[in-house]
Amino acid sequence: MTQVFDVERALAQLTLEEKASLTSGSDFWHTTAVERVGIPAVMVSDGPHGLRKQSDNPDHLGLGESVPATCFPTAAALGSSWDADLLTRVGEALGRETRANDVAVLLGPGVNLKRTPLCGRNFEYVSEDPVVAGVLGAALVRGIQSQGVGTSLKHYAANNQESDRMRVSAEVDERTLREIYLPAFERVVKDAQPWTVMCAYNKVNGTYASQNHWLLTEILRDEWAFEGLVVSDWGAVHDRVPALAAGLDLQMPGAGPGPDDEIVAAVRDGSLDESVLDASVRRVLRLVARGLPAVSSAASFDVDAHHDLAREAAAAGSVLLKNEGALLPLPSTDGVAVVGEFARTPRYQGAGSSQVNPTRLDAALDALRSVGDDVPFAAGFTIPGGPAGDDDDLLAEAVSVARDAGTVVAFVGLPAPDESEGYDRPRFELPDNQVALLRAVAAVNPRVVVVLANGSAVGVSGWHDLVPAILETWLGGQAGGSAVADLLLGIRTPSGRLAETIPHRIEDTPAFGNFPGEAGVVRYGEGVLVGYRWYDTRAMDVAYPFGHGLSYTTFSYDSLDATVDGSDVTVTVTVTNTGPVAGAEVVQVYLRDPRAAVLRPTRELKAFAKVALEPGESREVAFALTARDLSYWHPGLRRWVVEGGEFVVEAGASSRDIRGSVSLHVEGEPLWSPLTSMSTIEEWFAHPVGGPLMQAALVPPADLPLDDTMAAMMLQMPAKVIAEFGIPGFDRARLDALVAQAAAS
Amino acid sequence: MTQVFDVERALAQLTLEEKASLTSGSDFWHTTAVERVGIPAVMVSDGPHGLRKQSDNPDHLGLGESVPATCFPTAAALGSSWDADLLTRVGEALGRETRANDVAVLLGPGVNLKRTPLCGRNFEYVSEDPVVAGVLGAALVRGIQSQGVGTSLKHYAANNQESDRMRVSAEVDERTLREIYLPAFERVVKDAQPWTVMCAYNKVNGTYASQNHWLLTEILRDEWAFEGLVVSDWGAVHDRVPALAAGLDLQMPGAGPGPDDEIVAAVRDGSLDESVLDASVRRVLRLVARGLPAVSSAASFDVDAHHDLAREAAAAGSVLLKNEGALLPLPSTDGVAVVGEFARTPRYQGAGSSQVNPTRLDAALDALRSVGDDVPFAAGFTIPGGPAGDDDDLLAEAVSVARDAGTVVAFVGLPAPDESEGYDRPRFELPDNQVALLRAVAAVNPRVVVVLANGSAVGVSGWHDLVPAILETWLGGQAGGSAVADLLLGIRTPSGRLAETIPHRIEDTPAFGNFPGEAGVVRYGEGVLVGYRWYDTRAMDVAYPFGHGLSYTTFSYDSLDATVDGSDVTVTVTVTNTGPVAGAEVVQVYLRDPRAAVLRPTRELKAFAKVALEPGESREVAFALTARDLSYWHPGLRRWVVEGGEFVVEAGASSRDIRGSVSLHVEGEPLWSPLTSMSTIEEWFAHPVGGPLMQAALVPPADLPLDDTMAAMMLQMPAKVIAEFGIPGFDRARLDALVAQAAAS
Repeated sequence: MTQVFDVERALAQLTLEEKASLTSGSDFWHTTAVERVGIPAVMVSDGPHGLRKQSDNPDHLGLGESVPATCFPTAAALGSSWDADLLTRVGEALGRETRANDVAVLLGPGVNLKRTPLCGRNFEYVSEDPVVAGVLGAALVRGIQSQGVGTSLKHYAANNQESDRMRVSAEVDERTLREIYLPAFERVVKDAQPWTVMCAYNKVNGTYASQNHWLLTEILRDEWAFEGLVVSDWGAVHDRVPALAAGLDLQMPGAGPGPDDEIVAAVRDGSLDESVLDASVRRVLRLVARGLPAVSSAASFDVDAHHDLAREAAAAGSVLLKNEGALLPLPSTDGVAVVGEFARTPRYQGAGSSQVNPTRLDAALDALRSVGDDVPFAAGFTIPGGPAGDDDDLLAEAVSVARDAGTVVAFVGLPAPDESEGYDRPRFELPDNQVALLRAVAAVNPRVVVVLANGSAVGVSGWHDLVPAILETWLGGQAGGSAVADLLLGIRTPSGRLAETIPHRIEDTPAFGNFPGEAGVVRYGEGVLVGYRWYDTRAMDVAYPFGHGLSYTTFSYDSLDATVDGSDVTVTVTVTNTGPVAGAEVVQVYLRDPRAAVLRPTRELKAFAKVALEPGESREVAFALTARDLSYWHPGLRRWVVEGGEFVVEAGASSRDIRGSVSLHVEGEPLWSPLTSMSTIEEWFAHPVGGPLMQAALVPPADLPLDDTMAAMMLQMPAKVIAEFGIPGFDRARLDALVAQAAAS
Repeated sequence: MTQVFDVERALAQLTLEEKASLTSGSDFWHTTAVERVGIPAVMVSDGPHGLRKQSDNPDHLGLGESVPATCFPTAAALGSSWDADLLTRVGEALGRETRANDVAVLLGPGVNLKRTPLCGRNFEYVSEDPVVAGVLGAALVRGIQSQGVGTSLKHYAANNQESDRMRVSAEVDERTLREIYLPAFERVVKDAQPWTVMCAYNKVNGTYASQNHWLLTEILRDEWAFEGLVVSDWGAVHDRVPALAAGLDLQMPGAGPGPDDEIVAAVRDGSLDESVLDASVRRVLRLVARGLPAVSSAASFDVDAHHDLAREAAAAGSVLLKNEGALLPLPSTDGVAVVGEFARTPRYQGAGSSQVNPTRLDAALDALRSVGDDVPFAAGFTIPGGPAGDDDDLLAEAVSVARDAGTVVAFVGLPAPDESEGYDRPRFELPDNQVALLRAVAAVNPRVVVVLANGSAVGVSGWHDLVPAILETWLGGQAGGSAVADLLLGIRTPSGRLAETIPHRIEDTPAFGNFPGEAGVVRYGEGVLVGYRWYDTRAMDVAYPFGHGLSYTTFSYDSLDATVDGSDVTVTVTVTNTGPVAGAEVVQVYLRDPRAAVLRPTRELKAFAKVALEPGESREVAFALTARDLSYWHPGLRRWVVEGGEFVVEAGASSRDIRGSVSLHVEGEPLWSPLTSMSTIEEWFAHPVGGPLMQAALVPPADLPLDDTMAAMMLQMPAKVIAEFGIPGFDRARLDALVAQAAAS
């Protein structure tokens, strides 16, 4: 068993060269050891929904075969559960497997916001909403770290696409960063203190995330009080010394002695203060010391129990989009036929760093046949990497099977190569051969249940009106197949809710036209209007809104109330299971700020709770909103502000299914900027001190034909321009005196 | 008669103080005279569609009463004529009136692009398309300047809103500026050399237009070879010395001796080279010398002839949006009733600097009653500034009149205070009282013709399905009322086409969410997707598309052909009047570039021609497209490039009514950037020299499980990262050698 060393003592013994060596990996997955002073290496491994620990001889891209581990549902599925407790339990299981494999840090979770459905890595991310991503990300981190191993919160920040990800500059204004792309990271850091944060590949406003002092030090450490270590995404460091100075502690993977030598040289020539290096070395040593107990002690995990948990999580994250005529749950498998290759060849995880070697793998077809073994099946289409076949013949066979069935369950989804890190999705719609299957099957049987498997929203407009029921399962992990059977047969009741909007068409999406960028730059032109913030504010029709998800029971909302105490708001609402079976409702609290100095989205999620209720059961749910929840980031003042006035609190079952709303008045804070000669007359008039001064000074001459139009024009003019235009008695000297007077008050 | 002086001789005689004084106005409307050396002052006056010459005692905002002049249709209406010859004739008339009033420079036209319908000054601008704005703007300038007086092309640049216009920074990427916001200015400068260009109030990417060397000197003079003078918008100069150095020659209005003294001091202390001042003084002197002959010679104009021309132009710029059942033209006024206050109280021009004191004013009601004097009328609603009334009573009266009529003509539009410089429009829809009138009238009479008067697109979704005919007249100038009567009665045939899309809702518009900006910054988040480029590329439904307009006859398109010679494309198409009466068709040539390294709009207008045809007459129309027409602005290379490949030429009657298309292959030019270690493997492979080098050097090891997914990932990775990941035989040294080899070839 390796001995834990004393960090400060070890640091004091290290040579400059040894210190530098500690700030980069020794290979693809290990930190650097310094045996001379008793510092061992620790191993880190992918990934967010299952351990991807490579053997001792990793291949040269770090993407080959790994040891068996439970493949839990991807973040897209976990996020759709809206269930923090569940994510903590999944995290605990992940932590146990990590520890059992002598790995010190599991490289996840990813909480990047979903800016476009086409991002190839969306399956690894939680939501298009920062509250959902932050709350659930923190829950997962807490679970993993409860087992004595670390996490790596990734990819910080604004890594919202895979196209050109290693070079592209995300051009995002500060308000949008603060309100949309950073808060999930902020919440996880503040609430769960991940051992490490992983910087993104891309540039943010022209500076590589790996060299971005504002992101890595000013915001992450100074503002959010992050206590851990910043590790690079693999290959993200391009200029080692500026990266270290910016706050990047550990370069991964090892890149040979070159970068370490640059650090040594920079310290020697005085361009890098050795204390900066020491700070990073200290963080690396602390990480190693922190990870040692877990990797040094024997541990194991229960494969069956983890599989069962994966099954529970897959069910909880599946979203019942549509269920006309209460077609689901199916009373039994009698008369049920299955079509679609994915029933036999599960699509259950994405590619790249999150590709797990599962301990087991459940196919939905097997799960259904384990209930009733006479379930007919037809593949219907081929998928890349699946069994070969002629799609025309497969389609005809499936139509024949469907025609004879009482109910058809059709398993469709995105082919695996569509979704990976490293490149973005080639299409928004399902492949043509699958759409053809759905249309053909729906034409011969009115009772079609579509089961979707995909890591991010897919287009449904070509077929969803033709079928009565749709179950979105995302990429549900190794037990996804049996979880689907549980849901179809009513063994479990669906309780997932969309953590991302399903739009009608890719042309409707906020980033369309600004994705994936040009010539190394991607403009975040939609600003804060991401996800439902875009669709709701632009009042666009969508296929299925954010927060939507059906159950096998129904829920009512009553007694919504909100009380204000300063800038704290307590919201209470009573939710009741009004239907025939037990189920869970996700109560969503949105806030509207109808009037503000900046454009605010029509509504923004501020809190949520998943509430399990027996038939007839009621529960009052309470939510505490803080000043921050009421705030927006003021781009001029560069701080969070609560602008006083009317707010509306809404409780709903989706962003388009608001069950109650209540208005409240919040005092807020004054937003005056100092008055200058370039302040407009309107700004002068609105100012408590400057207003009376300007009213007294600016008397329009009697011969000025001051109608409403001209008065409106004058209000928007800077005082300086009015002074230059020669209003009698109001010249530049008079204005300068007013400015001085206003400043002195 | 004032003697023209010798510019260089005068310049040589001037003191430093006199030079400085010449670079600002002496008052609101005059340049500064230097009597000592025989330099007189000349007068400049608003505005783009009629002379707004103030008396000798202008008020203090320069917005009071002016001498009578012909109020021609606003630019919104002239732009909808798509008729360059007409604009030249209107320009000639404007020039004659300018000269007759001893004014040297008429301050117009405005060719800013219409980014949002809510811009308060859109009525002064031509189009949402730079080709329409540029071609028509140049025609107007040629006409005005043919009379020996000058123009001022305004507002240069990116002045696309009135909100906070004197401070706001328009944040626009260079490609968007080059392709959308600058080309109309470029075309007018290159084709018509306006005597002056007026800089905008706003900042462009953080620098005031008045101090923007890149805009005023590098682009305007160095690239476009502008030969004239740059004048400030009134009050747009905030820092006189940097403005002069940037290329701003003349500050208006005069702002007292302060700014001139700053110039003198800067020359004295060496911070401003006197040659910079001399260059501006020379331009001012040239302008004065150029304007003197016209203002010194007696001239007059024919009020009646100009009124008739205004009437012709108003008719030509009106757009027949809808005409179900050929309701129009009306055979006579028999059975016709008129409702709507605007029939009696014409809305014919905008406010602010373009507000003309008209020589005459035709009301549509009078014009119709001059044909048949028994035409009943009911006001239907009140408008601000119009006759008082109770809207409920007025509505009831109008419904009663409408019920009894064979056909109802309803005159509605925006109230005058809605549209002015200095602030933006408060609403997109018509006022509620007018919408109520339209709905009430349509409910009792199926034959309703709506006549719209507004300076920019208004929402029609609340009522346009309820009426069979709509005539959009914009703000048609002093003869607009009689022009409407001409069109309604078939005395003239409508030939206007929309120079701006009419969207269904303000939420559909490209700038929504990014207008009017926050905290002094407006992000042009939609990039090049402005106007129909947005609606077409996002495949959105619109109320009436760009280029749309009906006639009383019909046209066919035949024999579309396009031939390529290098990067020149000759397009020919034959258009035939297939209907019963004479009319004019606007043939629109669009270009599609289906595959390019940047996102190109679905289609872009490249040329157009207005063709008058007798019934049965055919004409072949030819268009010459150049390399520039095929190009886009490459944001990385920072130049216009013709990317080779397939292009599609379309000929159509609107952007949504394409009558024919033809594909063509253009060779284009190579777009290789120099290969570096940060070039991706894909870029290496695609390069003619680097490709074979990299193919030979990068041999994936046999043990790498290189499936399609991994291969796709590798292609997008910079070579440097691959080298760092440790592919055998492909390290950083090998890569550096490849970069050197590629550079040497």
